[in-house]
Amino acid sequence: MSKKLKIGVIGLGRIGQIHLSNLLHHIPGAEVVIASDLSPESHAFAKNLGVEEVTTDAYDVINHPDVEAVIICSPTPFHVPYTVAAANQKKHVFCEKPLDVTLDAIYAAQKAVSDNGVKLMLGFNRRFDANFANVRHIVADDKIGDPQILRITSRDPGPPPIEYLKTSGGIFLDMSIHDFDMARYIVGSEVTEVFVKGDALINPEIKEFGDIDTAVIVLTFENGAIGVIDNSRKAVYGYDQRLEIFGSKGMAKAENNTADNLVHFDSNGGHISLPLHFFLERYETAYRVCLKSFVNCVLNDTPSPVDAHDGLMATAIGIAAMKSLQEGRPVKLEEVISHTLV
Amino acid sequence: MSKKLKIGVIGLGRIGQIHLSNLLHHIPGAEVVIASDLSPESHAFAKNLGVEEVTTDAYDVINHPDVEAVIICSPTPFHVPYTVAAANQKKHVFCEKPLDVTLDAIYAAQKAVSDNGVKLMLGFNRRFDANFANVRHIVADDKIGDPQILRITSRDPGPPPIEYLKTSGGIFLDMSIHDFDMARYIVGSEVTEVFVKGDALINPEIKEFGDIDTAVIVLTFENGAIGVIDNSRKAVYGYDQRLEIFGSKGMAKAENNTADNLVHFDSNGGHISLPLHFFLERYETAYRVCLKSFVNCVLNDTPSPVDAHDGLMATAIGIAAMKSLQEGRPVKLEEVISHTLV
Amino acid sequence: MSKKLKIGVIGLGRIGQIHLSNLLHHIPGAEVVIASDLSPESHAFAKNLGVEEVTTDAYDVINHPDVEAVIICSPTPFHVPYTVAAANQKKHVFCEKPLDVTLDAIYAAQKAVSDNGVKLMLGFNRRFDANFANVRHIVADDKIGDPQILRITSRDPGPPPIEYLKTSGGIFLDMSIHDFDMARYIVGSEVTEVFVKGDALINPEIKEFGDIDTAVIVLTFENGAIGVIDNSRKAVYGYDQRLEIFGSKGMAKAENNTADNLVHFDSNGGHISLPLHFFLERYETAYRVCLKSFVNCVLNDTPSPVDAHDGLMATAIGIAAMKSLQEGRPVKLEEVISHTLV
Amino acid sequence: MSKKLKIGVIGLGRIGQIHLSNLLHHIPGAEVVIASDLSPESHAFAKNLGVEEVTTDAYDVINHPDVEAVIICSPTPFHVPYTVAAANQKKHVFCEKPLDVTLDAIYAAQKAVSDNGVKLMLGFNRRFDANFANVRHIVADDKIGDPQILRITSRDPGPPPIEYLKTSGGIFLDMSIHDFDMARYIVGSEVTEVFVKGDALINPEIKEFGDIDTAVIVLTFENGAIGVIDNSRKAVYGYDQRLEIFGSKGMAKAENNTADNLVHFDSNGGHISLPLHFFLERYETAYRVCLKSFVNCVLNDTPSPVDAHDGLMATAIGIAAMKSLQEGRPVKLEEVISHTLV
Repeated sequence: MSKKLKIGVIGLGRIGQIHLSNLLHHIPGAEVVIASDLSPESHAFAKNLGVEEVTTDAYDVINHPDVEAVIICSPTPFHVPYTVAAANQKKHVFCEKPLDVTLDAIYAAQKAVSDNGVKLMLGFNRRFDANFANVRHIVADDKIGDPQILRITSRDPGPPPIEYLKTSGGIFLDMSIHDFDMARYIVGSEVTEVFVKGDALINPEIKEFGDIDTAVIVLTFENGAIGVIDNSRKAVYGYDQRLEIFGSKGMAKAENNTADNLVHFDSNGGHISLPLHFFLERYETAYRVCLKSFVNCVLNDTPSPVDAHDGLMATAIGIAAMKSLQEGRPVKLEEVISHTLV
Repeated sequence: MSKKLKIGVIGLGRIGQIHLSNLLHHIPGAEVVIASDLSPESHAFAKNLGVEEVTTDAYDVINHPDVEAVIICSPTPFHVPYTVAAANQKKHVFCEKPLDVTLDAIYAAQKAVSDNGVKLMLGFNRRFDANFANVRHIVADDKIGDPQILRITSRDPGPPPIEYLKTSGGIFLDMSIHDFDMARYIVGSEVTEVFVKGDALINPEIKEFGDIDTAVIVLTFENGAIGVIDNSRKAVYGYDQRLEIFGSKGMAKAENNTADNLVHFDSNGGHISLPLHFFLERYETAYRVCLKSFVNCVLNDTPSPVDAHDGLMATAIGIAAMKSLQEGRPVKLEEVISHTLV
Repeated sequence: MSKKLKIGVIGLGRIGQIHLSNLLHHIPGAEVVIASDLSPESHAFAKNLGVEEVTTDAYDVINHPDVEAVIICSPTPFHVPYTVAAANQKKHVFCEKPLDVTLDAIYAAQKAVSDNGVKLMLGFNRRFDANFANVRHIVADDKIGDPQILRITSRDPGPPPIEYLKTSGGIFLDMSIHDFDMARYIVGSEVTEVFVKGDALINPEIKEFGDIDTAVIVLTFENGAIGVIDNSRKAVYGYDQRLEIFGSKGMAKAENNTADNLVHFDSNGGHISLPLHFFLERYETAYRVCLKSFVNCVLNDTPSPVDAHDGLMATAIGIAAMKSLQEGRPVKLEEVISHTLV
Repeated sequence: MSKKLKIGVIGLGRIGQIHLSNLLHHIPGAEVVIASDLSPESHAFAKNLGVEEVTTDAYDVINHPDVEAVIICSPTPFHVPYTVAAANQKKHVFCEKPLDVTLDAIYAAQKAVSDNGVKLMLGFNRRFDANFANVRHIVADDKIGDPQILRITSRDPGPPPIEYLKTSGGIFLDMSIHDFDMARYIVGSEVTEVFVKGDALINPEIKEFGDIDTAVIVLTFENGAIGVIDNSRKAVYGYDQRLEIFGSKGMAKAENNTADNLVHFDSNGGHISLPLHFFLERYETAYRVCLKSFVNCVLNDTPSPVDAHDGLMATAIGIAAMKSLQEGRPVKLEEVISHTLV
């Protein structure tokens, strides 16, 4: 293995561009060999940053002889096909979430990765946010004792366009999936049951295609803990990303980040700043740390910090959540998943 | 009606003594005529505060010719009998929560109160806590728009003795009932469905008599809002009483109260104070304001701020919660309650 | 000494009424025998609370055979005469601040108290505020190490009427004197030098009689620490009472108290509550604890927690501050005080 | 003027390396042509980042035909000579603080800059910190009304080596100078008088060469406001950088930044994070924004946001502060400065 990891980037949309900039400017162990995307603008973007080779064909990246690892930022339906193709070429894979919206595809990806002995890491970047990572450390260090209650608040500043929502796979696989991964990460135990209460309180129109925009999700964990996630597609005051874990010895919580730490008082009251507006601002550093973790795990041959099993479970919880919403009852994970990867 | 309301107090346990002191020292419109309790110590307590007449018989209070209103602080099984007896004597009634653990008894109490044209107010004192009352005002003033998500965290510093728990009526009617009332108060809409996920994570022994000590409770409201309450019998860091209401225009939340507003930094970190230890500290002022509201509503002949309907609904939600826990499914309020009082 | 301390109250203005209510309702060790004031309204107030004897003559209180201790809440010029008279009658004395605006009078009061072997306690109530008392405990427990920098912010919500200011003795003896006492209390060391920079930024009119309404005061302490107080007569957002002590091992600070712990977010920002409006709200509990400390120190024959020496030093710092303002230079305490009482 | 500003960097010490990285990665309008430093390691650093030409001679940078602007990060004694030489070569100058420790040198630098019609910007990076910049906006928008009291707390996590301190020019020109600039920036008015109370409370040894490590500095402003800065060379809990401005309509304050927004409660209390450790962490973004402002002011031909006058005033306040410390009296700025540049 070379001292620098030679990387190819597939997909230069919003997230792909973030990953590319981070690889070039902030991850000394990475070297970008080639990048692919259909749009000419993204080629100019990559060239301007110093990427020497660009292409419209993802397989040029996967098959490039110098490429040791690929970063997959394409639309979700391509995640597994590219992962399998790259694994078969003995390339390590970093893939954006969700790995797939069906469990069979995830099993297939995992098989390819496993058969070829390459690493697979999923882009659950929030695990690398300083707030959440430090809460996890507090839990792992037994500072709150046995986890008993988990609360996650995860609200977007505004919904995506209705056209996007129609093909998004629904709120659970599009938005809550990050929270499902976070729940497992913070509690350190598997989810065994899901109950959802949800509605379209922001835009009733989305109910027409079976989706919702407001949800309260109750999770039961193997270790006995109970979790609750509340999701909204529209928090007018900005991106609301908080969590709290309560246990036998104490409690830890992570509050939102703000652009500054100002307090302004006048005769009307005290005024403080809004949370950072959306995920690009809130998770700017987390994206960087996340990708650096991938490069390090490959260079040092350590286990992937977020692997196919994590992808499988997040998707399975999402599928169970949808079933719970549709059937109005708690759904056990074993109803939707035949076996885990562990 | 005299300018001062002539009051008799029934029951001088912990809460009865708080109410008595407040009546004597902080509520100028109240005059305590007589108090009853079985214990000689409580008689001495009352005498020492200046109460002229004490008795062991609650009916001495109810039937006292000068008494215009009674404060019922006896054990729960006596709440409705004393309420009915007092109402039949044309006495106004302030009764501690819960009014009763069965709906039929509550209907009976309400009938007596209504037939006799007297006031009935229930001691849901938390509504009179400045934090929660001000959140309610923010909601009522439409500052958060349409309520969509309610979150209540309500955790005790430690469980009561197991002997107490055995006869407590269960966590929902003993502890969560305050949160059920708070949920209806804050959202301003009726609960229509309850789902509970709970367990005995602190002391598995209490499962033997069908109780739990940790619960996550999902409430559905008539206006579409979804609520979630998390309860624990044991927060080692103190009494944790927070809530948050999220809506189409914003969000309001109430944090815990602390004994001071100190921050101490040393090389290990920053240190802040714990929440106030338990309900006597946290709700000291709320108890006073609550009782003053009762005296005022009688003296000014205004509606009771917390009436029999409120008591009925809180108990009904508790009964539905127990059914949900036992049957592992969401339970509609209409399954447990034939008709409301409104 | 009887188990209850028999007390006479002199002066039933705003503070006198607060003390009287506290003695009657919250200090079980106190019994109020008599109270004096010139106004008939205050007599009615006292009678209504249950005081049996009222008078217009302070000496009726001082000379009352049953009175063991007097609470002096009269205007400042009467503080020392009443203190001396009471001491000569072997009565213990609680006196409002300042003891006097001249040092000679304070020496005289101290002599009478000392000669007659009675207690004298001054009403520097802020020492008994939970925030400040707990900061002091942190310092006394060596948790911040050697004190190096003290910062006090003390700002009133609005200036008193100009007519009051004309006879107030100036900002230092009327307002800052509380901060001078606090500075000595928190640091635990004597002030040796004062430098003032001040101006009339709120109402230039008060400069005409040599006063100011805005001040920054630098204090030097015997132990080497340096302190700074900032005072303003008008903070439009309410009573601003904070302090911070910094030392070799860390820092402790006390923030303001608020009526609630709400946070409200809308699309314009986050909104928090103002500080409690003024001293009656902020120091409500401190007044009670302060007076209880006096009653306890007499009943238990322990040293007065705030004695004549404390009164002397606070006044001396105020005199030095005025001299510094007038002469535009740092003034050593030894320039204004010939000897201390310790 | 080209669309990209061609830049030469002089000095690749700690700050020079930060500026170089920012120019290369975060400031699209900048192109680095050449960099100079005496150490071979720094050459390797620059080469590795992609700088094509490196040299040991600062004049190679200044005289390079393609260089349009120089970034001066050399030791302070070289600031003015390089500034003058660059200005005479018609190169724009960004120079680290302080411009110089003598006023005459600053006048000379200003003359060269003015005669040659080039820009000079000083590296008072804290003005570009989001917290402080937003406080300034609040003041400039008249949201706190007329400024009356300014408080700055500026404490380092630990003192530099004693050998460094001996040649540092003293605490006022080495450390407080940033606060002097901040004071003028926030209040928006010139300082007219300085009074200092200071001591060597951390390490008495430094008194031997006339320096101190703890200071309280009172500033008087032309517009009547009064300011106070407290400085310490050693805050064991980290870099403490806060300020507060109080005026006729309200108050605004900036709190410290922390690595996360966690709160952890156990039975001992609540625990929060320390401030970011030192200036590299706290002002990471401010350095970037600061340098970007320089590039933009040159490219767009707008006035320098921090010019020679700002450098002159910060140094003059530092000289007055030293005089005040030595003479134990308030010192007027006009005693140390014959004329300003405005």
